[in-house]
Amino acid sequence: MASATSLVALLHGPDRPGLVARVAGWIFERGGNILHADQHSDTAAGIFFQRIEWVAAEGRAAADEAGFAALAQSLGMAVRVASSARRPRVAVFVSKFDHCFHDLVLRWKAGELAGDLVAIVSNHPDLGDAARGYGLPFHLVPVAAATKPADEARQLALLAQLGVELVVLARYMQVLSSDFLEKFGRPVINIHHSFLPAFAGGKPYHQAAARGVKLIGATAHYATRDLDEGPIIQQDVARVTHRHGVDDLVRKGRDLEKVVLAQAVRWHLENRVLVYGNKTVVFD
Amino acid sequence: MASATSLVALLHGPDRPGLVARVAGWIFERGGNILHADQHSDTAAGIFFQRIEWVAAEGRAAADEAGFAALAQSLGMAVRVASSARRPRVAVFVSKFDHCFHDLVLRWKAGELAGDLVAIVSNHPDLGDAARGYGLPFHLVPVAAATKPADEARQLALLAQLGVELVVLARYMQVLSSDFLEKFGRPVINIHHSFLPAFAGGKPYHQAAARGVKLIGATAHYATRDLDEGPIIQQDVARVTHRHGVDDLVRKGRDLEKVVLAQAVRWHLENRVLVYGNKTVVFD
Amino acid sequence: MASATSLVALLHGPDRPGLVARVAGWIFERGGNILHADQHSDTAAGIFFQRIEWVAAEGRAAADEAGFAALAQSLGMAVRVASSARRPRVAVFVSKFDHCFHDLVLRWKAGELAGDLVAIVSNHPDLGDAARGYGLPFHLVPVAAATKPADEARQLALLAQLGVELVVLARYMQVLSSDFLEKFGRPVINIHHSFLPAFAGGKPYHQAAARGVKLIGATAHYATRDLDEGPIIQQDVARVTHRHGVDDLVRKGRDLEKVVLAQAVRWHLENRVLVYGNKTVVFD
Amino acid sequence: MASATSLVALLHGPDRPGLVARVAGWIFERGGNILHADQHSDTAAGIFFQRIEWVAAEGRAAADEAGFAALAQSLGMAVRVASSARRPRVAVFVSKFDHCFHDLVLRWKAGELAGDLVAIVSNHPDLGDAARGYGLPFHLVPVAAATKPADEARQLALLAQLGVELVVLARYMQVLSSDFLEKFGRPVINIHHSFLPAFAGGKPYHQAAARGVKLIGATAHYATRDLDEGPIIQQDVARVTHRHGVDDLVRKGRDLEKVVLAQAVRWHLENRVLVYGNKTVVFD
Repeated sequence: MASATSLVALLHGPDRPGLVARVAGWIFERGGNILHADQHSDTAAGIFFQRIEWVAAEGRAAADEAGFAALAQSLGMAVRVASSARRPRVAVFVSKFDHCFHDLVLRWKAGELAGDLVAIVSNHPDLGDAARGYGLPFHLVPVAAATKPADEARQLALLAQLGVELVVLARYMQVLSSDFLEKFGRPVINIHHSFLPAFAGGKPYHQAAARGVKLIGATAHYATRDLDEGPIIQQDVARVTHRHGVDDLVRKGRDLEKVVLAQAVRWHLENRVLVYGNKTVVFD
Repeated sequence: MASATSLVALLHGPDRPGLVARVAGWIFERGGNILHADQHSDTAAGIFFQRIEWVAAEGRAAADEAGFAALAQSLGMAVRVASSARRPRVAVFVSKFDHCFHDLVLRWKAGELAGDLVAIVSNHPDLGDAARGYGLPFHLVPVAAATKPADEARQLALLAQLGVELVVLARYMQVLSSDFLEKFGRPVINIHHSFLPAFAGGKPYHQAAARGVKLIGATAHYATRDLDEGPIIQQDVARVTHRHGVDDLVRKGRDLEKVVLAQAVRWHLENRVLVYGNKTVVFD
Repeated sequence: MASATSLVALLHGPDRPGLVARVAGWIFERGGNILHADQHSDTAAGIFFQRIEWVAAEGRAAADEAGFAALAQSLGMAVRVASSARRPRVAVFVSKFDHCFHDLVLRWKAGELAGDLVAIVSNHPDLGDAARGYGLPFHLVPVAAATKPADEARQLALLAQLGVELVVLARYMQVLSSDFLEKFGRPVINIHHSFLPAFAGGKPYHQAAARGVKLIGATAHYATRDLDEGPIIQQDVARVTHRHGVDDLVRKGRDLEKVVLAQAVRWHLENRVLVYGNKTVVFD
Repeated sequence: MASATSLVALLHGPDRPGLVARVAGWIFERGGNILHADQHSDTAAGIFFQRIEWVAAEGRAAADEAGFAALAQSLGMAVRVASSARRPRVAVFVSKFDHCFHDLVLRWKAGELAGDLVAIVSNHPDLGDAARGYGLPFHLVPVAAATKPADEARQLALLAQLGVELVVLARYMQVLSSDFLEKFGRPVINIHHSFLPAFAGGKPYHQAAARGVKLIGATAHYATRDLDEGPIIQQDVARVTHRHGVDDLVRKGRDLEKVVLAQAVRWHLENRVLVYGNKTVVFD
């Protein structure tokens, strides 16, 4: 909740004694004031994780940002440093479902997100009026199986032109190719249903109803080559009973999807999510 | 929560107009007083479900119990009628884990269960002292792969001799064969972990930690031939973070398993669970 | 989820044998088909409650609606009968906070509510553009302490003219007078924060933060003369920690308020909420 | 989850630049290895909080423990340092209710608590057999209004003689006097119900049922002079409906009380709870 410009670093690498002291000492020597510092060690894997947020001394923010990256490198750590003065530019991909779309836009307008929505990208025209009603640029990029490489190239060109740093798939009903993910080279957050037990294939809510599950769930994760298998950021569930038909499951699923996706996007934009291997450390 | 002797019927079958009136009328004509009645129609499948609980007129309980079964048959419905005067006899199967065992016994002693624990059956001697400390008969029936049919025959003989009407697998670490389930012919309730996404195979908590899940779960279900795929009675989850190691997941899993299994057993003993197809209707 | 026109009756009154049979028999005799029937007896108070939903025989819906009310009266029961063909007209009262407003409107547009929003009424102009953007009539009725009776009279005249059957206070920051409630004579649903322990007075989130609560909550209830003390329809909570500042509590509170208020309104519009004394029976 | 002997310090005091560096540097210079470090700043109040856990260099644990206290003092911070080699001695106070008692004892036996139960103290003989069955010393200290000062003096003498460092009130149905709390001078953890809205006075579950609440709750807190108003450690809630009678509320309340109290005791014994003002920071 700091209002002054602050820097946030997300670090991880081989654990060894003295890391906390080195990092904190480096900031202190440069006149910085640590607001939050949160460490975690995966003792089994021998990996050290840290999120550290500080206010740099007057006029030193840019120098500290570059310097800290060099410090981390010298310690053998991977690092990402972000300044609160720079709000990431976000593109929201949608198709026809509008619940996550409205939810994200309204949260952004309410000041809940530490980034800016700069484009709504869709393969269908349906949400165009709603996007423009919010004053948001709407980019229609139809996608067809036969022309997918070219379609994705148009999307990539758009993202590059707009300087997009995060893509949020807000119930975008197309699978992004590995090629797209690699070329974009920046994070993509996706939301999907999740059930106990898990159901693969189509019509998951119908399957869940047929199986008589008592909980339905939603999972937000980073998109990777393995569809729906990327690092999990957030999950939640809702209780259902035999009285809930497929329509009710779908409705409850929408509420879950909204909340879980928004939470994941919020954490990501506040630099609270550190990915390693196929999992995340969320410094909440 | 009725203290007088009451009858509970669980009915299901093809839906058609007039069922509620027929059932309620039948009870009224015999001087019965309905305490609770809960209906559900699976409109897609055209099936009617009802749980109805009533106090029979003085001296008519036994006659009503038999009569109601005949009524249901005449309506083309499957039915189970239970009297609150008859407390089902329950055997708890255990191995070495003791958390569900203690939890069930203490709930039973606290009066939370509408049935009676009459035997603790185990393939290991470990919980013998604890069982006897509670004043409960402990039956050691070792099970080995080579002698499994004979071992299960001993278990079945014991259950028959004790008049057991429900088996609860309280973290019993042996798979019951289809043959056992068929010969026993009465319900068996099992508890197992459940995750988002689901993990098959051994060491599920290790898999869950490696995958970085944010929720862990437990599912109580009726045991069927398809291991862990029987009708689900109850499920619940707990939130975990990267700070929780495998030991913490296991500890949180124990708490979930206790609560979810106890809830399923309690509902079953109060005749609140109706199975159809591979799912349940729980009249809570 | 019935698509055909159905009738729903909410009944309550002194319990006595035969009520279920009488009600179900009455419907059956008139060719009706019961879709759902849910009874509850408050055995301590001796009160019988029922929600029963049925499809009337072809052409008999209006006659059944009137007839059922007479039946209930003859049984000494209070009753409310509603037809799914008639969607209640709803006015949403707002001030400056917009989260519940957007949430209700979007759910209504998504088809989640069994009623129609016919007016947004506000004492401030702030949400006027947003309301009109949704195509909803926006009525500005400023309210001042000195002119409150006249201001409320204008509100009442508007509600009467629009045929409003439910008022939802979506973070409307004025207290409705007892006189207003009495003259309106129809239900008013309100949402407010709720905490463990409870905090009276202003700035509740500041109080909650100062007290170090671990849970914050929201409660939806019918408005009555005793402010915030009316029959509770729904409640929910969210977990907070020392890391959450007042701003975070307010943000999490907004999410709770949206979900809890929407759920209460949905249940009310589906005729699932029966009030008696100062509490509710919710037939979910 | 460290198995080697570790030290844990809980620090708090006026925030100022360089604290994290000073603390981490001090440990590093002495050859210590930080396992976990968690900071929090209450920016409004200008207070810095830290929990730091480290393995001291071979043979230096005792010296570090004393030295760290001196360091903290020199920084103007309050501190508590604990060694994992020293397991706090815990007395559990009970009356007649046994659910929290059994739950705590079984968790202790399962290795979930980083302390040792050394005495069960009760004002009633009811749980004596159960305590002895677990191999735990049972001390009967009747308490009467007329003799309360003398009775509490006996309790205090017992606690002093046993070297008790934490008292857990596991549904102990006597109020401890301010005098007792002051003379004991060590933490006392209590559990009590909590509701939305809050109910004072006797028979809270009856009041909750009469008010028609949809959630019931439990709160674990440190006991202070103001009964039930001490710093909150943990809270949780369970959902109830009109179908749940007072008996059900009490039963669900028992489950909440067990889990919430055990969680608070576990956190306290792992030195995760820092009290300041009338609230807690829980480093989970």
